[in-house]
Amino acid sequence: MSMGRFISLEGGEGVGKSTQAQMLAETLRGRGLDVLLTREPGGTPGAEAIRALLLDTQFDWDASAEALLFAAARSDHVANTIAPALDRGEWVVCDRFIDSSRAYQAGGDDLSDDAILSLHTIGSMALMPDVTFLLHADGDDIAARLAQRDSDGSDRIGGKPADYHARVAQRFRDLAGSDPERFVLIDANGPPDAVHERIVRALASMLGEGG
Amino acid sequence: MSMGRFISLEGGEGVGKSTQAQMLAETLRGRGLDVLLTREPGGTPGAEAIRALLLDTQFDWDASAEALLFAAARSDHVANTIAPALDRGEWVVCDRFIDSSRAYQAGGDDLSDDAILSLHTIGSMALMPDVTFLLHADGDDIAARLAQRDSDGSDRIGGKPADYHARVAQRFRDLAGSDPERFVLIDANGPPDAVHERIVRALASMLGEGG
Repeated sequence: MSMGRFISLEGGEGVGKSTQAQMLAETLRGRGLDVLLTREPGGTPGAEAIRALLLDTQFDWDASAEALLFAAARSDHVANTIAPALDRGEWVVCDRFIDSSRAYQAGGDDLSDDAILSLHTIGSMALMPDVTFLLHADGDDIAARLAQRDSDGSDRIGGKPADYHARVAQRFRDLAGSDPERFVLIDANGPPDAVHERIVRALASMLGEGG
Repeated sequence: MSMGRFISLEGGEGVGKSTQAQMLAETLRGRGLDVLLTREPGGTPGAEAIRALLLDTQFDWDASAEALLFAAARSDHVANTIAPALDRGEWVVCDRFIDSSRAYQAGGDDLSDDAILSLHTIGSMALMPDVTFLLHADGDDIAARLAQRDSDGSDRIGGKPADYHARVAQRFRDLAGSDPERFVLIDANGPPDAVHERIVRALASMLGEGG
């Protein structure tokens, strides 16, 4: 395969996206593919600087400003990291992408999904993943994972109440339901190796390597 | 008059917008009005932080990221400064607003005017000025004003070549032509007092105080 693919991993806090993104990148590399592992928000120096603004509690960003800042960070990430890698024929594994904006900003606040999507159609940014793995886990598993993290309270998203997370999870499921061609739901309960195996199997199936 | 008005001043570099915004605010205050004088990019701590990112030459923002960052700064400025002032019945005099984004980002780069405008319709930001004074001056006057400024080369817009400024000026004229209800063209040649007098006269005429 000479053409790169763009794979995103999505889901709420504590479902194991970062771990699974790393494991997937390693497995793909083990098959001889060139793989770029990246994440949002962040992925470029400019996007990291925007991420720092978003997490800085001295600013009280409203929903519109937050959505625009995430979109600006993504624009920089696409222009300077993702698109060049795809142009070079690499595979891109991205921990969160546009669907996180759709789930968190449109789901958790009063912006419409169309408004969020419209921010991502300007310039060269209108790039969607080829495959999006949506990780979902039971509330108890998530709570246990989140409890293991050191939280200093500076993360404005991680610090929100449980019903916020439930709404976001529902919003992710709605997005997946509206675009079954791109989304694959992954059961993220259980040990990381088992979840990884599910992702690899689903990817093989989607890429026509048999089920 | 108990209701506030939202006045923006627009135009290219060196036409005297900041000076005229200050003079207009003073004149309105002299009439007993509560006036908020503000500017873009900037106007709030969050917007100033975004402005610092935009001017930081370590980042190579492309047209899309730049447009989104300006829109994020404006969203914060509207939510935290302009809209609350208008709600209190104050007059707002703003040195640059959305038309600068339309002239600089859509005019100077490859983004459409519709794309720029679409960034300003999300959330509560869909606020347009009641009156926009577009200042235009001859090239020689502008060059003289710009030469008087201390430039350290860090301003990415001010440092662009002459044909860039000519294109932006043309773009401003096109915007004014497309919305004659809101725009008033102001001859910005000559001494600041004379230009101020033209603005005050035009404002009185627009507000029905006689010509």
